[in-house]
Amino acid sequence: MSEYNKDASCEVRFNTSNASKNPKEISKDGSFKRQVNRFTTPFGSTKEELPVEAGRYRLIWCPACPWAHRSVIVRRILGLEEAISLGTVSPMRPRIDRVDWEFSLDENRVDPVLGIQYLSEIYVKTDPDYMGRPTVPVMIDLKKGEAVQNDYFRLTNYFEVEWARFHKRNAPNLYPLELREEIDALSDVIFHEVNNGVYKCGFAQSQEAYEAAYDVLFNRLDLLEERLATRRFLFGDYITDSDVRLYTTLARFDAAYVTAFNTNRNLLREFPNLWGYARDLYQTSGFGDTTNFDAIKRHYHLSITINPDKEDVKILPKGPDESEWNTPHNRQSLSGKEDKFLRESAR
Amino acid sequence: MSEYNKDASCEVRFNTSNASKNPKEISKDGSFKRQVNRFTTPFGSTKEELPVEAGRYRLIWCPACPWAHRSVIVRRILGLEEAISLGTVSPMRPRIDRVDWEFSLDENRVDPVLGIQYLSEIYVKTDPDYMGRPTVPVMIDLKKGEAVQNDYFRLTNYFEVEWARFHKRNAPNLYPLELREEIDALSDVIFHEVNNGVYKCGFAQSQEAYEAAYDVLFNRLDLLEERLATRRFLFGDYITDSDVRLYTTLARFDAAYVTAFNTNRNLLREFPNLWGYARDLYQTSGFGDTTNFDAIKRHYHLSITINPDKEDVKILPKGPDESEWNTPHNRQSLSGKEDKFLRESAR
Repeated sequence: MSEYNKDASCEVRFNTSNASKNPKEISKDGSFKRQVNRFTTPFGSTKEELPVEAGRYRLIWCPACPWAHRSVIVRRILGLEEAISLGTVSPMRPRIDRVDWEFSLDENRVDPVLGIQYLSEIYVKTDPDYMGRPTVPVMIDLKKGEAVQNDYFRLTNYFEVEWARFHKRNAPNLYPLELREEIDALSDVIFHEVNNGVYKCGFAQSQEAYEAAYDVLFNRLDLLEERLATRRFLFGDYITDSDVRLYTTLARFDAAYVTAFNTNRNLLREFPNLWGYARDLYQTSGFGDTTNFDAIKRHYHLSITINPDKEDVKILPKGPDESEWNTPHNRQSLSGKEDKFLRESAR
Repeated sequence: MSEYNKDASCEVRFNTSNASKNPKEISKDGSFKRQVNRFTTPFGSTKEELPVEAGRYRLIWCPACPWAHRSVIVRRILGLEEAISLGTVSPMRPRIDRVDWEFSLDENRVDPVLGIQYLSEIYVKTDPDYMGRPTVPVMIDLKKGEAVQNDYFRLTNYFEVEWARFHKRNAPNLYPLELREEIDALSDVIFHEVNNGVYKCGFAQSQEAYEAAYDVLFNRLDLLEERLATRRFLFGDYITDSDVRLYTTLARFDAAYVTAFNTNRNLLREFPNLWGYARDLYQTSGFGDTTNFDAIKRHYHLSITINPDKEDVKILPKGPDESEWNTPHNRQSLSGKEDKFLRESAR
């Protein structure tokens, strides 16, 4: 079993209770500033890059986390399941005041491959001075027994490009060369205004910072709603990396962000195009089958907080009705042909 | 100025900080049990009853409070403004950990007629042993300088029946004799399952108590949605006391309860009939002109709590868009004639 529990310095290191008066990742104006990633070496073929090798890495994710979810969607769409194994941490923090991730869903609360109970163990083993939040997704190099990649922003792109030789036959091209510049530009906007935009609303520690993030978020959703009026997906008839990025936030919107992050101008299901688009993706292999609403709801309402209050009784909102995600959307009428994504065979 | 600030025993009496481990009005199973009203003597003509006298009483309300709001709606619909004066407390508690109401919107933070800063002053003056929450609505007898009526459940009925001789000409009959039994029966259901039902969701201190209240609430809203499919108002073509009672909860639903009380199965604006019905009332004199969404939102999100946490930064959700309350509803098509309520002249 893990030695971590007995390590008093780790207890202090990942305990938030002393941070509540002066929380980390909060600017002077009360706005949320996400920490930078620690392990950002790219995958590639040069000596300075991480070697692409089937069976060498283990991807750790939490089904609640939108940043990790995107890498799991892409892994499944591209058929990288055999090449990269998957470990799952619980959506519930080990304690409300400890921003760690725990393998508590596994037998004996230990990941069967890594043999650890807490994700922080591998972060600290890799970098004994690590003081940030241990985050998912993270790629663990099983040869070294170290965390080597937690760049959630680029990880899907590595899967799409550097890991191409392990893709399944007929895997779609999520990151076509001729669209990369446009996809990158849109991903950047989606990151700042939508993916991280909801966190800026939810973690704001001033009314002004919250309202500024809220305006940016809904302004962007209005623009995306318009964009999706005439296109089935963000770049037309085919799913791309940008769709994966937008989907992970949309899937959490009504179930978590509206109530937990105060993003309450509109529900997702009140945007006709975005809601049809989100269901279209949900009903596509790789999306709905990796979406765990229960984990999402429990994490955001019961387990996540910048300023945790141990006394507080946490209640899990019972709604909304998830079965609506399976209702017909008729988005295929926007495509030249039906189900192009599933039929696409050549790249 | 008020002496109350200097009264240390009152400070302790209405301070919730000692109650957070063992909160008042919470049962062993975590469910919310509203305190009973202290001043329940009816208005009437016998010696044991409160005399009905124009100019003798002052009604104290808070625009955020649904219980007080109903009496102010009825006062306006019936034209009792001249007979009963109105004092207004702030939607913001004096402190997050003090369940009092303050006249902080008035000059020098003092009610110009009563000369008090805190509502608790008149409660304690009337009953030196009073230990409950000081509540609105409350009728103050200006002759005695005492609180004499805080029975929010019956107060509108007293206005409708006992105060009839002060009604304006052409005032509608909100409580017709032939419907009283049915109105009372429906009011009882609306009270337990809707008006107080949302509080049972929001104040529940166990997941089980919350879910039970949630199921009862939405089951009742589904039934009311059905009832309003064929009737313009709950009892047909005319507004009754029951509509006032339902309205005050509906007006707070999307603006407050969905986010603050976790009543998130559906928004009000997703129930076609209830939403049209609520707008119909909102657009009728007495309803919309007494509805203060800003006060409602600020109270429920920034100021109300069973277990207050002083450290917590409170954020006011920016949505939803209140202008939607003024959109057309076409509910008059359910009536025999248009605008019967406004035209009704005889009782």
